[in-house]
Amino acid sequence: MKQYTHIFHGTAFTSKSAKEVQQLVDYLFCINEDGVIEKIVAPTDPDYEKLLDAYGETENFHRLADGQYLLPGFVDLHVHAPQWAQSGTALDLPLYDWLNTYTFPVESKFSDLDYAKDVYEDLVSTFLANGTTTALYFATVHKEASLLLAKICSEKGQRGLVGKVVMDDPEQNPEYYRDEDTQTALADTEEFILAVKDLDKSTKQGVYPVVTPRFIPSCTEEALKGLGELATKYDTHIQSHCSESDWEHNYVRDRFKKNDAFALNDFGLLREKSVMAHCNFLEDEDADLFAKTGTAIGHCPLSNAYFANGVIPIAHFHKKGIDIGLGTDISAGSIPSIFDNARQAVVSSRMLEDGVNTALPAEERGVPNARITINEAFYFATAGGGESLSLPIGRIEENYTWDVQIIDTKLPTAKLPIFNANEDLYDVFQKIMYLTRPENIREVWVQGERVHSRAK
Amino acid sequence: MKQYTHIFHGTAFTSKSAKEVQQLVDYLFCINEDGVIEKIVAPTDPDYEKLLDAYGETENFHRLADGQYLLPGFVDLHVHAPQWAQSGTALDLPLYDWLNTYTFPVESKFSDLDYAKDVYEDLVSTFLANGTTTALYFATVHKEASLLLAKICSEKGQRGLVGKVVMDDPEQNPEYYRDEDTQTALADTEEFILAVKDLDKSTKQGVYPVVTPRFIPSCTEEALKGLGELATKYDTHIQSHCSESDWEHNYVRDRFKKNDAFALNDFGLLREKSVMAHCNFLEDEDADLFAKTGTAIGHCPLSNAYFANGVIPIAHFHKKGIDIGLGTDISAGSIPSIFDNARQAVVSSRMLEDGVNTALPAEERGVPNARITINEAFYFATAGGGESLSLPIGRIEENYTWDVQIIDTKLPTAKLPIFNANEDLYDVFQKIMYLTRPENIREVWVQGERVHSRAK
Repeated sequence: MKQYTHIFHGTAFTSKSAKEVQQLVDYLFCINEDGVIEKIVAPTDPDYEKLLDAYGETENFHRLADGQYLLPGFVDLHVHAPQWAQSGTALDLPLYDWLNTYTFPVESKFSDLDYAKDVYEDLVSTFLANGTTTALYFATVHKEASLLLAKICSEKGQRGLVGKVVMDDPEQNPEYYRDEDTQTALADTEEFILAVKDLDKSTKQGVYPVVTPRFIPSCTEEALKGLGELATKYDTHIQSHCSESDWEHNYVRDRFKKNDAFALNDFGLLREKSVMAHCNFLEDEDADLFAKTGTAIGHCPLSNAYFANGVIPIAHFHKKGIDIGLGTDISAGSIPSIFDNARQAVVSSRMLEDGVNTALPAEERGVPNARITINEAFYFATAGGGESLSLPIGRIEENYTWDVQIIDTKLPTAKLPIFNANEDLYDVFQKIMYLTRPENIREVWVQGERVHSRAK
Repeated sequence: MKQYTHIFHGTAFTSKSAKEVQQLVDYLFCINEDGVIEKIVAPTDPDYEKLLDAYGETENFHRLADGQYLLPGFVDLHVHAPQWAQSGTALDLPLYDWLNTYTFPVESKFSDLDYAKDVYEDLVSTFLANGTTTALYFATVHKEASLLLAKICSEKGQRGLVGKVVMDDPEQNPEYYRDEDTQTALADTEEFILAVKDLDKSTKQGVYPVVTPRFIPSCTEEALKGLGELATKYDTHIQSHCSESDWEHNYVRDRFKKNDAFALNDFGLLREKSVMAHCNFLEDEDADLFAKTGTAIGHCPLSNAYFANGVIPIAHFHKKGIDIGLGTDISAGSIPSIFDNARQAVVSSRMLEDGVNTALPAEERGVPNARITINEAFYFATAGGGESLSLPIGRIEENYTWDVQIIDTKLPTAKLPIFNANEDLYDVFQKIMYLTRPENIREVWVQGERVHSRAK
């Protein structure tokens, strides 16, 4: 019999498609030494009893308790890691002023590696405790502190995709917080890429360097072009912001006489491994370009309520074939949980569909067919995030990594409202999605390793 | 020296006005045997050291730990207690279909008192654990089960305002779930009022009967009129729904040729002690009538995203002088926390201000000046809820009841992102409002009694 590193026994929820949730009831999940799901065995499978006999009494066998369920770990596609220090504050200004008044001063502190260590260690632990097994991070302009974030991910067992931020335009960025000049920005980025690739060799779950122009308004054309070339040269992921707010969308149109998506594409920044945050103001041609280039959208519903000036028509863009995942956008979104953002993604889509202004007649108020379901929000939070990053994550399926969270619905201090011993499993799933608190997340595993536990 | 039952020593946040939060830093809060705040003593007060000397080493002295803060307990102005059993599910249908397909079947089960006990005990405990010290409840049509809910509030120490629901119109309600007839509905309501008033005599924190026509569409005119008379006769609180959705708002207009507010007023249902849930479609004349009659709005932002077809212009109504509080609206809103609803109240108001449809130009998209701040959301969650119910609750102020929650910002499993030992206190307040989880709520007190504790 094949040797497995771990076998889990329990009921899992995973996306069958964007609209359908698959229930794997009382299955066995067999994990190999690489931390990959090698085999999933149904109770009706002839191997099921054999595996139970062989492993049932071993240390490597993990039987979920009554009321516990497996979900894929979440993928967070948009995080400004340094902004964790100001999360929950400073939500009152428009984007441009917010950056200059609150955010750049906070980020500039990350030249201090001790401070960076405090904040980054706390953030990565907090994300793991919230079920986020993979995160795509903006760090700061500082090469060393950005590398420190990658190291902390590596040590704590989170799959981290980390970018040293480039913001080199002296006309657009304050003197106290920007790249020294364009050549330094590009050289630092290249050194950062190499250092993270080196770190990745000793990191089981993987850490990845990400080419990260903050957004077009922060960067010179030379930097944008150079960053596109570096991404091609090293085949890295790319992240930036695209068409986030009226101001940002119009800034790019004024500067390049085209929409943000086309401008980014001109610099080689829209590729299969690109993730663009927000994208609220994409027009249909922009969306088609996203679909064609394989560029994904990092949808950040909480953040968008404060800074985006409108709700992204996410159902429409998904129909166009664009990969979509969710992001917390710490700290423009204040809550470090994809559960909260999945809920808000549904809520915001309903508000887009119905409209908001009750002084208007119903038929003029909203945008028909804009809603997404909680199944779709779950899909974006997991499988969609994995597709966006072109990584085998976000599903409980053979050949995917064992990145999971174990949810306890019967925790005495935070019991979910299940009063029927035979509660319909799809209702259990919905209650988990709508009502889970961090304390219900008892264990989190990444690439076959336990990285968070609340067990006594 | 005056004898106090408890003295608390620590820092509290309480509303100074709707827009301003007061910080009481290192104060003493002196509670009398009635559970009322008799005296609040500043560190500069000559009595401060005397009180510390007299009480500091006694059992009745409670010193908050470093990183802990006092907030007023929350007031939840709109809860359908039986629907807790389906919370987190069934959010996909319009209001009318939702009631008939999901909700009436669930509520009909509460003829079974054992089932009612299970659900109600769990809900009241859950609310206390979420910092909700006062709740205004719709129970079901069943007199006995409704009384059971009031008893459970009484026993668990929550200030419960409970209504036996009236829905007597045989044309509008299913045969399996409605009042037997109008006379029975009114007789049951009167017996229920008397029974709760009797229970109140032995309940320190108070339990209150509430006259509760479900909403106009469920009730005959005779019932509505009779309920208005009962409320006057016994000077009770009144609760119902008003102008919640396009369907409900238009139903009343079709039936009575006037808006919901004026129709309710005709039956004597708008009074100082009335709270109407939702009110999204109030027009200015309706709002003026609310202000004139002292009727409050129970604003339920999460629920509204699913069922209300628009965002209530809450800033506008507040300027008109209407009392406003927040409600979870379990289970049309799925989350049993006023923290989550306070956050959503801010988010929804921002979405109303900015608008949602990104295909429209900015100036046609939203409703100017619609936003509320987190300070205002906090006010609605606490002091505004107290004013809505005409009770001395929701403020940490002399002559208010000692209804508080103790928030721990340094809990190892759910630390708030505070990295500066001298963090600005207003930033601490905002982080509490945006990031507190139930596990951060270490203790909850109602009327001077500890009703929830997570202390070891």
